[in-house]
Amino acid sequence: MTLAPRPRSKAAIGSIVERMQALVADDLAAVEMLLAERAASPVAVIPDLSGYIVSAGGKRLRPMITLISAQAVGKTSRATHALAAAVEFIHTATLLHDDVVDESDLRRGKPAAKAIWGNKASILVGDFLFARAFNLLVETNSLDILNRLATASTTIAEGEVRQLAAMKARDLPTEDYLAIVEAKTGALFEAAAETGAMSTGSHEHAAALATYGKNLGLAFQIIDDVLDYGGTTTVIGKSVGDDFRECKITLPVIIARRRGSDEDRTFWERALNPDTQAEQDLAHAVHLIRATGAAEATVQEAEAYAALAKGALRSLPQSVYRDALEDLADFCVERAY
Amino acid sequence: MTLAPRPRSKAAIGSIVERMQALVADDLAAVEMLLAERAASPVAVIPDLSGYIVSAGGKRLRPMITLISAQAVGKTSRATHALAAAVEFIHTATLLHDDVVDESDLRRGKPAAKAIWGNKASILVGDFLFARAFNLLVETNSLDILNRLATASTTIAEGEVRQLAAMKARDLPTEDYLAIVEAKTGALFEAAAETGAMSTGSHEHAAALATYGKNLGLAFQIIDDVLDYGGTTTVIGKSVGDDFRECKITLPVIIARRRGSDEDRTFWERALNPDTQAEQDLAHAVHLIRATGAAEATVQEAEAYAALAKGALRSLPQSVYRDALEDLADFCVERAY
Repeated sequence: MTLAPRPRSKAAIGSIVERMQALVADDLAAVEMLLAERAASPVAVIPDLSGYIVSAGGKRLRPMITLISAQAVGKTSRATHALAAAVEFIHTATLLHDDVVDESDLRRGKPAAKAIWGNKASILVGDFLFARAFNLLVETNSLDILNRLATASTTIAEGEVRQLAAMKARDLPTEDYLAIVEAKTGALFEAAAETGAMSTGSHEHAAALATYGKNLGLAFQIIDDVLDYGGTTTVIGKSVGDDFRECKITLPVIIARRRGSDEDRTFWERALNPDTQAEQDLAHAVHLIRATGAAEATVQEAEAYAALAKGALRSLPQSVYRDALEDLADFCVERAY
Repeated sequence: MTLAPRPRSKAAIGSIVERMQALVADDLAAVEMLLAERAASPVAVIPDLSGYIVSAGGKRLRPMITLISAQAVGKTSRATHALAAAVEFIHTATLLHDDVVDESDLRRGKPAAKAIWGNKASILVGDFLFARAFNLLVETNSLDILNRLATASTTIAEGEVRQLAAMKARDLPTEDYLAIVEAKTGALFEAAAETGAMSTGSHEHAAALATYGKNLGLAFQIIDDVLDYGGTTTVIGKSVGDDFRECKITLPVIIARRRGSDEDRTFWERALNPDTQAEQDLAHAVHLIRATGAAEATVQEAEAYAALAKGALRSLPQSVYRDALEDLADFCVERAY
């Protein structure tokens, strides 16, 4: 097993996701049906808004983790499908609330739901989808699974609150950043993988898959955070700079500041303050993150978590599904190249 | 059984709630312990904010309905306590999100949580408490109960979204108003009473208590809506006028406008538009609601629902708990006098 990822072409990376989707195509189709069916409501705004965000071109990464984890250790069932749909609804609900909290008008380069329907509808439809997720979880017939997802949801909220508080702490320690990432992103990846295994009726590999999911989530979010500064090579596009504009302290900034000169630190101090940030500061921030090697160092941190994720899979039986989970760990990191 | 409530003094009304609290004192103490314990979090803002709202002097009406419903048909248990605490957390989460959606800075005459900690923290701590509610529901060991509360939560969100859409419809039909009230308030009262019964292990009286709870919720909210215009007698205080300032269309307004002159309707049209509402409009609105008899008519509508609530109790065995539920229906209406 290779622990360090082998950089692949963009096309090859795209094909990893497509290959995974093909691997669980029937399961994924069942989940898509559930998502469409359960986002419905007789109240007009709800299906419009929830349909917009649920079908807004997400890769269905979290439900795929659930489905493939289940296939890797047993067989998927209607319970697995309900669970995977619930995981996606919980994710969608947090996206809707995040966009309100982050004051961001774009999501994946498209207008955020709140930019179309407003903050109020986004809050309430988030609540609606979150409640629907628990209706779906009842269909797994497992109080254990339900409890795991409820706990993951409290952990996500705790992570978001910590992140909010951290906005004011410009000298955020790396450990605090990682704790936030583990809570706001790792917790749902962890629960998605673990409960996927549990939905097959066996708990045998659930703990290993929980470890896989948590570390995968960390790798995924850390890469997301470096991609928000253009990764290691990309030119600055319109999907770059959200975190910077929101003055979020992420790993590339933490490292760039730590390695920077006094002058650099003065820059970060001013630029990451919403009252003093200027339009042209983003370009200089990207420059410093590249020049100090912070982008590369951030990717290496993600690689370490991806390696831990893959390591956790060792105890699983060899199968195309285990291979797919390994590939997914590579995929999470390779997006940065 | 008297269907029309007998107006009582304020002291007598206060003592109804105190008598109910005394009737289930031990159960209520167990619920309070759970509320304090489960609102805790290592993340600093969460216990501060959730403690503020959870202990902000609510009457614990909904958990009391759960506890007394259970006692009326069987015995309370740890499951009932977990359920009652979950019901209060769901209610608290919706309050936090409502205050953000309604843009109101006061809640029960005290600063709303969002006025102290901000909208963002209120959204996220609402999510946290909502997730914690589902952890508590797992402890009921009943997927049926869990499903009922998840469904009630979706219905509440649907009601809130309908209410949001109705702000723009100044000619809101009475039926639409009632549908909104049934969803946003009736659904949780209904589930609180029904699942209280279910938590005793018997479904025998669950349907009757569901009917009781739904109609009680309607009576309660309709009275709340007339109290927001000072009820039938109260002078205008600082807890009056929230709905008016938010341009919410409630029953007193619907009736006052229907019964009013063309001139009155012109007034309502202008005054219930956030762009044209003036400071002194509230006093005239209160005057019209009294002068047209809309306040009395609104109270009568609530009395009809309170009577339906009491009627639903007929099939229950006679006990001090059934009496308490009847008294509670009276209490809901008598607050208006």
